[in-house]
Amino acid sequence: MVTSFGESHGPKVGVVIDGCPAGLELRVDEIQQELKRRQPSSELFSTERRESDLVEISSGLFNDRTTGAPISLSVSNLDAQSEPYEERRHTPRPGQADLVARLKYGGHEDYRGGGRFSARITVGFVAAGAVAKKLISTIGMTAYAHTVEIAGIRARKIPRDEEEKASRGNVLSCADADAAQKMIHAIAETKRQEDSVGGIIESVATGVPVGLGEPVFDNLDGDLSKAFFAIPSVKGVEVGAGFESTRMKGSDYNDQLRVRKGIIESPTNNSGGIIGGISNGQPVVCRIAFRPPSSIGIPQTTVNLETMKEQTLSIKGRFDACVVPRAVPIVEAMTAIVLADCSLRAGLIPPVLKTA
Amino acid sequence: MVTSFGESHGPKVGVVIDGCPAGLELRVDEIQQELKRRQPSSELFSTERRESDLVEISSGLFNDRTTGAPISLSVSNLDAQSEPYEERRHTPRPGQADLVARLKYGGHEDYRGGGRFSARITVGFVAAGAVAKKLISTIGMTAYAHTVEIAGIRARKIPRDEEEKASRGNVLSCADADAAQKMIHAIAETKRQEDSVGGIIESVATGVPVGLGEPVFDNLDGDLSKAFFAIPSVKGVEVGAGFESTRMKGSDYNDQLRVRKGIIESPTNNSGGIIGGISNGQPVVCRIAFRPPSSIGIPQTTVNLETMKEQTLSIKGRFDACVVPRAVPIVEAMTAIVLADCSLRAGLIPPVLKTA
Amino acid sequence: MVTSFGESHGPKVGVVIDGCPAGLELRVDEIQQELKRRQPSSELFSTERRESDLVEISSGLFNDRTTGAPISLSVSNLDAQSEPYEERRHTPRPGQADLVARLKYGGHEDYRGGGRFSARITVGFVAAGAVAKKLISTIGMTAYAHTVEIAGIRARKIPRDEEEKASRGNVLSCADADAAQKMIHAIAETKRQEDSVGGIIESVATGVPVGLGEPVFDNLDGDLSKAFFAIPSVKGVEVGAGFESTRMKGSDYNDQLRVRKGIIESPTNNSGGIIGGISNGQPVVCRIAFRPPSSIGIPQTTVNLETMKEQTLSIKGRFDACVVPRAVPIVEAMTAIVLADCSLRAGLIPPVLKTA
Amino acid sequence: MVTSFGESHGPKVGVVIDGCPAGLELRVDEIQQELKRRQPSSELFSTERRESDLVEISSGLFNDRTTGAPISLSVSNLDAQSEPYEERRHTPRPGQADLVARLKYGGHEDYRGGGRFSARITVGFVAAGAVAKKLISTIGMTAYAHTVEIAGIRARKIPRDEEEKASRGNVLSCADADAAQKMIHAIAETKRQEDSVGGIIESVATGVPVGLGEPVFDNLDGDLSKAFFAIPSVKGVEVGAGFESTRMKGSDYNDQLRVRKGIIESPTNNSGGIIGGISNGQPVVCRIAFRPPSSIGIPQTTVNLETMKEQTLSIKGRFDACVVPRAVPIVEAMTAIVLADCSLRAGLIPPVLKTA
Repeated sequence: MVTSFGESHGPKVGVVIDGCPAGLELRVDEIQQELKRRQPSSELFSTERRESDLVEISSGLFNDRTTGAPISLSVSNLDAQSEPYEERRHTPRPGQADLVARLKYGGHEDYRGGGRFSARITVGFVAAGAVAKKLISTIGMTAYAHTVEIAGIRARKIPRDEEEKASRGNVLSCADADAAQKMIHAIAETKRQEDSVGGIIESVATGVPVGLGEPVFDNLDGDLSKAFFAIPSVKGVEVGAGFESTRMKGSDYNDQLRVRKGIIESPTNNSGGIIGGISNGQPVVCRIAFRPPSSIGIPQTTVNLETMKEQTLSIKGRFDACVVPRAVPIVEAMTAIVLADCSLRAGLIPPVLKTA
Repeated sequence: MVTSFGESHGPKVGVVIDGCPAGLELRVDEIQQELKRRQPSSELFSTERRESDLVEISSGLFNDRTTGAPISLSVSNLDAQSEPYEERRHTPRPGQADLVARLKYGGHEDYRGGGRFSARITVGFVAAGAVAKKLISTIGMTAYAHTVEIAGIRARKIPRDEEEKASRGNVLSCADADAAQKMIHAIAETKRQEDSVGGIIESVATGVPVGLGEPVFDNLDGDLSKAFFAIPSVKGVEVGAGFESTRMKGSDYNDQLRVRKGIIESPTNNSGGIIGGISNGQPVVCRIAFRPPSSIGIPQTTVNLETMKEQTLSIKGRFDACVVPRAVPIVEAMTAIVLADCSLRAGLIPPVLKTA
Repeated sequence: MVTSFGESHGPKVGVVIDGCPAGLELRVDEIQQELKRRQPSSELFSTERRESDLVEISSGLFNDRTTGAPISLSVSNLDAQSEPYEERRHTPRPGQADLVARLKYGGHEDYRGGGRFSARITVGFVAAGAVAKKLISTIGMTAYAHTVEIAGIRARKIPRDEEEKASRGNVLSCADADAAQKMIHAIAETKRQEDSVGGIIESVATGVPVGLGEPVFDNLDGDLSKAFFAIPSVKGVEVGAGFESTRMKGSDYNDQLRVRKGIIESPTNNSGGIIGGISNGQPVVCRIAFRPPSSIGIPQTTVNLETMKEQTLSIKGRFDACVVPRAVPIVEAMTAIVLADCSLRAGLIPPVLKTA
Repeated sequence: MVTSFGESHGPKVGVVIDGCPAGLELRVDEIQQELKRRQPSSELFSTERRESDLVEISSGLFNDRTTGAPISLSVSNLDAQSEPYEERRHTPRPGQADLVARLKYGGHEDYRGGGRFSARITVGFVAAGAVAKKLISTIGMTAYAHTVEIAGIRARKIPRDEEEKASRGNVLSCADADAAQKMIHAIAETKRQEDSVGGIIESVATGVPVGLGEPVFDNLDGDLSKAFFAIPSVKGVEVGAGFESTRMKGSDYNDQLRVRKGIIESPTNNSGGIIGGISNGQPVVCRIAFRPPSSIGIPQTTVNLETMKEQTLSIKGRFDACVVPRAVPIVEAMTAIVLADCSLRAGLIPPVLKTA
């Protein structure tokens, strides 16, 4: 169970992780490493906000192991420049949560930099994910994510067992190097136009034991999709063959069962490793749709909330033209968090880990 | 909050609804009417299991109004024929939860007719949805669903305000009568081939107030998608422009803000009525992907769990060749349940309803 | 996790138990037997409402074993006479929830027989407790309760290992037969005066493993006390030495630690088996205070809600002069339910039970 | 909803408050003031651990008002001396959680100073309580606590409306100045003997609206008692007449209803403001039993966990001989937190506060 706190320009962003078993080896640099993956790359298409993002562990760790007590992780917001946001106070950005936040919270929301709705809060998700990844690794599970589409450019499918490594070869975390080049150009071109573009990330979990997910209202797919929708800019989630399955015949879709060396397996994985809301032992595969970022330089129409008159808005500043590259470790983190929670609930990870 | 119970061939399926405000007018026939919509139509493409599905209200209603106490609703399973299932005990159906249920529950699961994993349990969802629909109507909200695609055949988009009515004109709940005809033929042809086929349902909620959804882990889109994934056969959920948004530029995607008669509105609804996880006052629009049903007559390969040898399986019996038509009221129900919960949590529906 | 539904004069009272492991042997007569213990005895001091209270299992059981799916249990209300309650509609009984229910639920509450606030709903608690007792017995835990005080008459303490059996020897479930006689006379005399009287029940759980309870907000003592306060008429809960511990010195209170045959134990149990919110392996001992029942024949002052004038009320009908005897199995049930939940959460009961 | 983190000798203790409405005025010094009340007084009977306990607000506050986003509050542990605890690593203190923590967490727990089981963590409770107290004050509710008994010495009852003020007149927060003097002497004498002593705190909430508490499993009394049991050293909770009510006749116990100036009221409050688990508009009154602290200088018997031999333990260091005085603001905090949660759930506090 993860509790999140913090906003873009407040003092800190972070999480409290409750219910992590005792005895998990954990060093601050392991969390730091994951946070680094979330930071903007040096390439052209990323925001220029640069923070060292040093994580602080306030509780729950002792002698480099978890204690079973809540783990509090936080990162200070150092590079927050609030001035440019002030002038946008009354001109909500189209596509952004500015207006809806103002209406829901009666104008009390911290609007600077998107406040609670900024992707900045995913720093906490990634930190929690680092703990979750270590935790699920104790039972042989791994979670990774990779970019499969940006700006309509699709990555070629490569064998699942080469995928993770191949995806680490470029700043987009795309396993198809050629497609990655095209995507990079597309993002660069989009950025030049002061526009933005979306894409799709695939999440893959391997080594998943049979039985994760508690039907019917705490299904594994339900929990995963809910977690993914907590990531800013997500507009869709599909599992296995997903939306494409709607165009398949049952005779094509159904993963046939066969025996290999005494073990039941399937040659295909259209189910995405989840049947009836429960993991079936195959890799758990989801795809997550990210819309284009809202903050663009191209002039847009908004309404000035003080005058209630329409106004043109051209957003200048340090914004990503595509969030997908930096969202890859976030998707990974959410996957690991859900798998860890489900494993604990299903009794597949013990409350005290055995240590060597 | 809805608790579900029951399995395909057990005595009853039902729900307990906890937290429904007091004073809501509710008659048993209103629930009955929704249940009827879930039943198989007389047309060729549906299962032949026919049950009167008379709902029983065991608590929480007094003088035709809710009392504020938990509402218990149930329906008896009368037409359950267990015999044919016995012989399939050890030959799990590909694509179905048979195998994963057996592994998760150690063989103790009620396997008859898919047991807890049967679409039969959605009787309870629809009953709860009937209550939720009445409840959200007290603040001017409505939820409806309609078929937008079956077997790759897409319904033409018609104006939103004609959609619900038009969709009631055929057994598929498809607002495009021409497409509906083609879909019906496609299903019939598929059934003839003893195969099955999937499709996509769109859920639309109108009159949704601004502010539903509690960031970041109880977002409205997250709650909706989790609820949809509780429906058997769902493999994907998207909101607004969804997966298509990944191929849009920000300048196309962003719903511009303008003023009409003193009210802020947008000419487009790519956000699907949800921004930052919160309803923004536009219609909330989701699309839900249903895979083809697993039970098909075409021979499939499975493994006999007693002999651990591969075996051919041809499933005969009363099965839907496409679940989409009967899933429409289920999607509606889940939408209404989530909106009701979020409205209560956000304080937009009072704990005691004003009565005339 | 138990969900409760039903009111005194509605169609049914019951529970849905979610999260019970698969493979637990369970027969309907085992639940029936517990329900019988809750019924009024043939002795003079009890209510005359007599119901056969036949439990109906609607889901979650298959071949006399739990399946891992939700278990729905209910009992029909047959002997409900609503007429006498109608005339009391506008004259709330002092000490009862009549008035507060009316104010909270805006007059929509089912007021007949106390409705949702009647002790009748504990039928469901006892049914759920029967399942929980079987479940905790699989890891060697037992829960029992006994009467330790009624009308100020205290039972003499007897050795813990004779206590449960001795308490089964009389209708009060009091392990001290002499005190029980005095209590019976006190209740009879009170009933003759058309008055009522309270008492104290002790709950004892043995075989409790070390480690139940999740600090700090899901402590074992916190969970137990919350569960006990769900029983009508409870006004206090104490653990171990309880309120008496406030008058002890630390040197008397602290349970010293010693070694006997290689095992650490304590000669005393002032902690009541819970330290730091966690079970320590000693018997878990709580005492629960029951106030006297509100419904008495002696004239009382109330306010007529229609006229808003004071009025005298003398309650005639079938009421217990003391709820303690019938509350014993309810206390037992709540104890078992909490211990079962905590054991599952702590991973001490597996999700699938091993069967012989 | 409050999430707690931190241990006695870790970097920080704190809380995250989720679900606090937007628009609540809150200044850091208001929290600081409550924390000061929790600190040891300069009188003889208190621990010598002295920390400035400066609270840090990491999120959720903007322009001195809450934003509706999670509020993260923490305090650094500065004065933690770990050395003396090291030598007690293997000799668990009788009455303390040392042994049970070691068994539950497999030796991974942070044992220094009691770790997660130290009263140090109540710093977070008091900080959260400061926010809760402000929140409930917006609807006219107040919560205070006072000492009613220490070492068997009972405070004389004074009129309810003088109680809070009178209790602020001495370091024990006891409204009876004479009794307070005797209690102070008793504590001093106990401390001289290197022993410890317990006591009882009464919690009083006034201005409580009718209708807090959600039957049957989220009753107000259940929620309060669960919260109180989260405070270290609590062994009992009673509401209104509590355990004493078990010795009363119904005719004495029942709070009669009468009309005064058109308002229904009761001359007595044996129910403690809660009937049927719901607040009835009278003051909500609970009493909480605190056992004597475990750490005493008088030699005790423990077991050395390395040698598994019995050993004498005499605990030297800075310990309170009685926790009651410092627990008063903690009880107040927990009361306010529960009342705030229940008020929000019952829709009695809006999600956005009206501001002047």
